[in-house]
Amino acid sequence: MQRIGLLTSGGDASGMNSSIRAVVRKAIYHGLEVIGIRRGYSGFIEADMGPMNLGSVADIIGRGGTILHTARSERFKTKEGRALAMENIQRFGIQGLVVIGGDGSFTGASILHQEYGIPMIGVPGTIDNDIAGTDYTIGFDTAVNTVVDAINKIRDTATSHERTFVIEVMGRNSGNIALAAGLAGGAESILIPEIPFNIEEICQKLLRGIKRGKLHSIILVAEGAASGIDIGRQVKEQIGFDTKVTILGHLQRGGTPTAFDRILAARLGAKAVELLMAGETNKMVGIKAGEIVATDLTEVIGKPSPINKNMYELAKILSI
Amino acid sequence: MQRIGLLTSGGDASGMNSSIRAVVRKAIYHGLEVIGIRRGYSGFIEADMGPMNLGSVADIIGRGGTILHTARSERFKTKEGRALAMENIQRFGIQGLVVIGGDGSFTGASILHQEYGIPMIGVPGTIDNDIAGTDYTIGFDTAVNTVVDAINKIRDTATSHERTFVIEVMGRNSGNIALAAGLAGGAESILIPEIPFNIEEICQKLLRGIKRGKLHSIILVAEGAASGIDIGRQVKEQIGFDTKVTILGHLQRGGTPTAFDRILAARLGAKAVELLMAGETNKMVGIKAGEIVATDLTEVIGKPSPINKNMYELAKILSI
Amino acid sequence: MQRIGLLTSGGDASGMNSSIRAVVRKAIYHGLEVIGIRRGYSGFIEADMGPMNLGSVADIIGRGGTILHTARSERFKTKEGRALAMENIQRFGIQGLVVIGGDGSFTGASILHQEYGIPMIGVPGTIDNDIAGTDYTIGFDTAVNTVVDAINKIRDTATSHERTFVIEVMGRNSGNIALAAGLAGGAESILIPEIPFNIEEICQKLLRGIKRGKLHSIILVAEGAASGIDIGRQVKEQIGFDTKVTILGHLQRGGTPTAFDRILAARLGAKAVELLMAGETNKMVGIKAGEIVATDLTEVIGKPSPINKNMYELAKILSI
Amino acid sequence: MQRIGLLTSGGDASGMNSSIRAVVRKAIYHGLEVIGIRRGYSGFIEADMGPMNLGSVADIIGRGGTILHTARSERFKTKEGRALAMENIQRFGIQGLVVIGGDGSFTGASILHQEYGIPMIGVPGTIDNDIAGTDYTIGFDTAVNTVVDAINKIRDTATSHERTFVIEVMGRNSGNIALAAGLAGGAESILIPEIPFNIEEICQKLLRGIKRGKLHSIILVAEGAASGIDIGRQVKEQIGFDTKVTILGHLQRGGTPTAFDRILAARLGAKAVELLMAGETNKMVGIKAGEIVATDLTEVIGKPSPINKNMYELAKILSI
Repeated sequence: MQRIGLLTSGGDASGMNSSIRAVVRKAIYHGLEVIGIRRGYSGFIEADMGPMNLGSVADIIGRGGTILHTARSERFKTKEGRALAMENIQRFGIQGLVVIGGDGSFTGASILHQEYGIPMIGVPGTIDNDIAGTDYTIGFDTAVNTVVDAINKIRDTATSHERTFVIEVMGRNSGNIALAAGLAGGAESILIPEIPFNIEEICQKLLRGIKRGKLHSIILVAEGAASGIDIGRQVKEQIGFDTKVTILGHLQRGGTPTAFDRILAARLGAKAVELLMAGETNKMVGIKAGEIVATDLTEVIGKPSPINKNMYELAKILSI
Repeated sequence: MQRIGLLTSGGDASGMNSSIRAVVRKAIYHGLEVIGIRRGYSGFIEADMGPMNLGSVADIIGRGGTILHTARSERFKTKEGRALAMENIQRFGIQGLVVIGGDGSFTGASILHQEYGIPMIGVPGTIDNDIAGTDYTIGFDTAVNTVVDAINKIRDTATSHERTFVIEVMGRNSGNIALAAGLAGGAESILIPEIPFNIEEICQKLLRGIKRGKLHSIILVAEGAASGIDIGRQVKEQIGFDTKVTILGHLQRGGTPTAFDRILAARLGAKAVELLMAGETNKMVGIKAGEIVATDLTEVIGKPSPINKNMYELAKILSI
Repeated sequence: MQRIGLLTSGGDASGMNSSIRAVVRKAIYHGLEVIGIRRGYSGFIEADMGPMNLGSVADIIGRGGTILHTARSERFKTKEGRALAMENIQRFGIQGLVVIGGDGSFTGASILHQEYGIPMIGVPGTIDNDIAGTDYTIGFDTAVNTVVDAINKIRDTATSHERTFVIEVMGRNSGNIALAAGLAGGAESILIPEIPFNIEEICQKLLRGIKRGKLHSIILVAEGAASGIDIGRQVKEQIGFDTKVTILGHLQRGGTPTAFDRILAARLGAKAVELLMAGETNKMVGIKAGEIVATDLTEVIGKPSPINKNMYELAKILSI
Repeated sequence: MQRIGLLTSGGDASGMNSSIRAVVRKAIYHGLEVIGIRRGYSGFIEADMGPMNLGSVADIIGRGGTILHTARSERFKTKEGRALAMENIQRFGIQGLVVIGGDGSFTGASILHQEYGIPMIGVPGTIDNDIAGTDYTIGFDTAVNTVVDAINKIRDTATSHERTFVIEVMGRNSGNIALAAGLAGGAESILIPEIPFNIEEICQKLLRGIKRGKLHSIILVAEGAASGIDIGRQVKEQIGFDTKVTILGHLQRGGTPTAFDRILAARLGAKAVELLMAGETNKMVGIKAGEIVATDLTEVIGKPSPINKNMYELAKILSI
């Protein structure tokens, strides 16, 4: 292995740049060359790529987003698109790939490996923390802290006005952000796609809170569980409370990464380079029980990553 | 003057607590007593009030919202409601009022003064910065910094995905938050209620940006100018760009106040006490050209507070 | 078990309040009563304690420090002091103790258990992350983020002036904060008590950096490895570089806890209550490989908690 | 005027980059060319300079420090050094200068103007806010917020341990940072160079606080008034209190600029370009009473910029 390719793909996540920096520096340390591919798999097809050196990754450790940019590529999903990609990979002398992204992104490189034998290692970068094979994904800790900060701010107003607020957070298939941020922020109710909820129960809890002198409440909703606006309307219909709804949206992806995400990103990126150097392929690096490990992609792609039920129960108990 | 009443009214704004602390401590320093009224004018009607001392305001200098809470009171708008309020004011021996809030809040106390002669001084606390008689209102600087922080985060994603984002911020009648945050955050377009906008012009600017190699854009919209979702749809219709829309909502009110808001709040609160002690009434304290001044309410209520056109022009020039 | 006592002891750490909240709410949920002891073991001796309810822990989830306060108690180290403490424990009907603090704090309660049989469970709260039996202590993640934020700020100046900065951080016996923050912040050199350092090597690295065009460097020093001021002087003597030294000091303890610390604090606090209810004693709760576990105090007190050597090596490689 | 030179000089201040961006964009908007000079006046002597375009200032609006770097130049203080500088200025076709820095920095360009007639405009960028002719300097608001954040964090520990903390902040000749941050952060005592202090009075205040049940105190010291360590020692000698001392140091310069500093920086930078275009010279731009104004350098350099005594008195009253 003398030259590796590096790309970010899928939704951006804070810490991706810290991981890019680690891949580049670790590779250079071991005498490898790195080619950065811009805009995900599109960059392969359009030959939008070039060499990276120590200077390419100077001063990016603390910046959100990804300097390599990211995009969806419909063409890469076709056999003909991948053939074109492979041509460019060969033209640039790339002998192995590091793909930072979600499990959809790993699938792309995995198919390329099947078809053309080019080794690839995946690095889990997504704010949702819903990938099997790792306890944490890059960007999750930052996103959760952003949501907790928003809860803090909104609680000031909720308390001052003695009202109920609904906050909708990201998580189409996963309640991880909502669960972690709700537990950390002390949300009174947490709605996640993994666990069915009952609007009447939520309303009863609101009423019990009022009786006990509680003057405000925050209902945190993962977008995959319900729409925040729907929940607000249902609460109004059931018990007549006027709620305010905030949809945090893309605010949750960016911002300077937390120390946790930077360290995770550095460790995972460096491990990916080691694996390629050791001749491995079709694996994803991850953190399990504090150790950096590699998991075969067959145990990652399409596998469930269940939420922590204990944490869900605890959040309920602590929000009495 | 031996005993003054203090209330917060209208929407909460970060820094109100710093102002409450200043009113209470300044009053106590001069030997006055302070009665805190809870939940705005409702507290008068329901006699929901009580004495405040140094301990009441310990450890609140850095907390968002208002420890006195705030609420709308329909009853206070009736003559009968105000009669009840005045009864309680007399029962508690209150001889003068400090009202922290917006110009609607000042109107309430002003009518009470007209009807019953009780002196009142207003302190401008609202994130919109749209009150005549002061260069800055309490809460504005904090809100603007919150919006700038959101722009920073969203720009990470906008850059990584090379997309256009629309961010809707508060400001029903005022573009001050949008203008200041847009200038500070480098937004490519700023839409405010004070200045008519042209969606075609905005789209042309987006296209020119693309041509010049600009990979992302942020359109900042004050809610009073347009709905962020509408703008997103219109951009899509006109030039086919898929935009993402974020509505910051109540996030903008709370959070720990900035140093600027804390200092402003302290100075204004202290001045309000001085004015009551000097026998003044029907005035609002404010900051003008760095000096703390008092303005007659007749020059405040219902008066326009125009935006700074130079800043608007500058924002345009700098976002080329 | 009907009534438990709760105290914080040793240096304060951000997240202790989140843990206090969890202990109180979890206990009340299970029908237990909680007595809060103020100022660590002093509170036992001076009977400075009282019942806590849901209201006692309202609105503390996001606040640094500890509402129960903390102090050193020389008297508690004497047999007579502990006898007095035990009298008060009995007088207040306390049947089990939760102690949030470091391993010195656990020793105190452990001796009390030996002498009087009162059950106790320890919760690791210290910014140093140097306690055996847990992968993370409460307050560590917040402290590391504070140091990384300081590195970011100082790097702006280091870059602008093209200079070398020395930053001294906490860690008398442990390099954990320095190591994590140095890796996350991209410090050029990290000096920790666990690994001997060589000032000439550090200076050679500075010179190599200069030759390669690097315009600034940050040397991060754990107080247990060396004094920042000494390092600055030695660099000056060896290679003539004028360095600037910053000592972060007590800045590192406080501040609103990160989401990570809040969640950890909540989980550990709740587990401590469960253990007391299950009749356990002389254990410390901790997080190991993502799971909340209990470890016998004999395996905690005085046991080494080695640093992660892989992370140390990685930090070196990434700072080339 | 077709081509202007731009440099930053003296200590870096957060917001300098926002000002650089405004100068470059405003100049380009009006058809001017901009030459950026690196490392302050050294860059002139070493011809370390080059053209700036829209891309040079992309993505710098929110970054601390200065992309043009800054340095002291002993050679520029000599006639021969300035002759060399002027040669390079002519070689690069520079017809006017914008200097962002403190009043020492303006002096340099002012002498150059006297000797060679090259027009120059100063932009006040320094965290100390001690320049006559402007109510605020670029970087001051950010520095004050950084200090307030530090006070918040340290107060958590001060409260938890019931102790007195001394915090030393920047300000060799000016107490502005200490005064603003002390008022905003609620420091119990504020020591500034402009007003003599009495250690006995400070100790008496500490004792009175203790008597009244106050459990902690923060003494904020501008470095120009005393050394924090000295104050700590004196308090110990006089009344036996063990204090902890934190020296914030260079932490105060960097970090992402606040919205206030960004807007100020943008407005001042743009105004500087306008003045050069209008044929002005030897002036400093500033903000006075909310308006952007120009002041002759003879009224700026060496002129006192007194502190706001009212604010000092208010801080005393509010910290009772």
